[in-house]
Amino acid sequence: MIKTDILIIGAGPTGLFAVFEAGLLKLKCHLIDALPQPGGQCAEIYPKKPIYDIPGFPEVLAGDLVDNLMEQIKPFDPGFTLGERAETIEKQEDGSFIVTTNKGTKHHAPVVAIAGGLGSFEPRKPLLENLDQYEDKGISYIIRDPEVYRDKRVVIAGGGDSALDWSIFLADVASEVTLIHRRNEFRGALDSVEKVEELKKLGKINLITPAEITKLHGNGHLEAVTVKVDAEEQLLETDHFIPLFGLSPKLGPIANWGLEIEKNAIKVDNTLDYQTNIPGIYAIGDVNTYPGKLKLILCGFHEATLMCQSAYKRIFPEKRYVMKYTTVSGIDGFDGTRKEAEKAVIKTIN
Amino acid sequence: MIKTDILIIGAGPTGLFAVFEAGLLKLKCHLIDALPQPGGQCAEIYPKKPIYDIPGFPEVLAGDLVDNLMEQIKPFDPGFTLGERAETIEKQEDGSFIVTTNKGTKHHAPVVAIAGGLGSFEPRKPLLENLDQYEDKGISYIIRDPEVYRDKRVVIAGGGDSALDWSIFLADVASEVTLIHRRNEFRGALDSVEKVEELKKLGKINLITPAEITKLHGNGHLEAVTVKVDAEEQLLETDHFIPLFGLSPKLGPIANWGLEIEKNAIKVDNTLDYQTNIPGIYAIGDVNTYPGKLKLILCGFHEATLMCQSAYKRIFPEKRYVMKYTTVSGIDGFDGTRKEAEKAVIKTIN
Repeated sequence: MIKTDILIIGAGPTGLFAVFEAGLLKLKCHLIDALPQPGGQCAEIYPKKPIYDIPGFPEVLAGDLVDNLMEQIKPFDPGFTLGERAETIEKQEDGSFIVTTNKGTKHHAPVVAIAGGLGSFEPRKPLLENLDQYEDKGISYIIRDPEVYRDKRVVIAGGGDSALDWSIFLADVASEVTLIHRRNEFRGALDSVEKVEELKKLGKINLITPAEITKLHGNGHLEAVTVKVDAEEQLLETDHFIPLFGLSPKLGPIANWGLEIEKNAIKVDNTLDYQTNIPGIYAIGDVNTYPGKLKLILCGFHEATLMCQSAYKRIFPEKRYVMKYTTVSGIDGFDGTRKEAEKAVIKTIN
Repeated sequence: MIKTDILIIGAGPTGLFAVFEAGLLKLKCHLIDALPQPGGQCAEIYPKKPIYDIPGFPEVLAGDLVDNLMEQIKPFDPGFTLGERAETIEKQEDGSFIVTTNKGTKHHAPVVAIAGGLGSFEPRKPLLENLDQYEDKGISYIIRDPEVYRDKRVVIAGGGDSALDWSIFLADVASEVTLIHRRNEFRGALDSVEKVEELKKLGKINLITPAEITKLHGNGHLEAVTVKVDAEEQLLETDHFIPLFGLSPKLGPIANWGLEIEKNAIKVDNTLDYQTNIPGIYAIGDVNTYPGKLKLILCGFHEATLMCQSAYKRIFPEKRYVMKYTTVSGIDGFDGTRKEAEKAVIKTIN
């Protein structure tokens, strides 16, 4: 059982900054995230895109913002459970919570802060009969290990960067790569589009456009797909079909925790501390909603800060916290490090 | 008459960032500040001190944060009335406001956002009889032009960096510098303390400690001060007396604008938009108060952002604003500049 003061669900920018503000209050944090690395969308979806509205940064790459936040919270030594999704929550008699992931990892904390962003990002699936029966039996939505496709026949569907980049990559791995897209136009980095064009000319990628997959065939494992080109259907034998239609956010199992939900977001009390309808569970950042809510990273930072103050009062009801400014008091890391502004000396002049 | 969309009173970090968020909504801003440069306390009081709790900056000098914010808002071309203090506000029949400074500059805007920080920083004054009658007649609390003191006799009082640094500087300008402090210990940068020590030994600074000024003498203009050393009083002839006892924040004339004030801060509606009791006047950053308020720069950034959304609705009640992300839509400056993330190409592969 992992024990901590504030259990944060979601390791995006808001969840990460909460570690810093909690640390100033001497509270330890542990983060759970379904993604394999911290940073949420910023790290997973657009690490190389510039953000212009983080205060104090005229421009910052999303990935660099995450790196900066990781450096900023380092003194407070957060724990991480990565690549696992928070599934269930059980309130204990003393008011604390046990949160269990899909892999069975258990976490115990007096305060839970949901910083789940827009939710877990799940692949968009094509609408095809018997789709679920071939999942992991020839159909996958995410490529975890390219070696699975070595010397196999692969059909990829999609028109964006993922479809382009994996077609290029697998052209050297698979025995046969077919790329199918419902339009003639692809949308992606110029490099990738040109590379696919070249591989098509070399006969290393079989390109079929405008077309779409309409049927799946097989006996236990996928054996073929029907491709509809214009009005005509043709059968294409294959070992694997990989639809790469992007990711779509889903609130996921948290939706069943008894929290008040409105428009796929968790309602919180914005008049005080961003607490949900369940005392001790807070929701901060893009995952929450309240009158006037803006889904901006900078708002998540503020919400995380006020949440930590409230969490402190919940954990130490008898103590009174007096806020200190970091410029005046510096930072004492849990790892023994100390950062502080150069102090004035006090010295007698004789 | 200066006309703008949002008139911001106070050009500290919160006021500056409001320009950015307003700019995204195509609203123009003009800022008034009593200080001669933008940046508020960060620029005036601690530009060289590191701040550790700005999200995304493991460490940033206060002055650098201001520089970054100035660069970030540059595309939105804000106007500045600097070195003047907002004195009076008059509500117009159409609901807009005219704000006039102590120098008579008039500003007209449909929305006023007070981002006044802890207020105007005013010098702490010694408690001395007839002090006001010598102000600007030998007594000053701020050194605006050191040349005023050339070849004059100067008495400085205080034990901090200002007193130390000005004593050092004026040692080369004035005919005679006397530094008086009520303790033997000075509190300041090591360099400054050591330099004063050295100048004292060289006879260029006359140091009297522990001592304090107890009386002022003169006929129209200051001519001498009484210095009390231990129990003994002595008369010291001088042309100037400069008490440097630090700055203390005062809400100033804003306190008379009919706003609801609580503990020297302006009460706002934190449930929605940080508006004060007077519709159209907002208060953001350290100058406001609400349940759970934390006087942190990062909270001011959030408050500024929500204020701008509300200001937009007030200025354009008929329009519906749909928020766009800067990462997706880029930034269109009022100066014709455009910033945007590299776009994906859309290209046909034949």
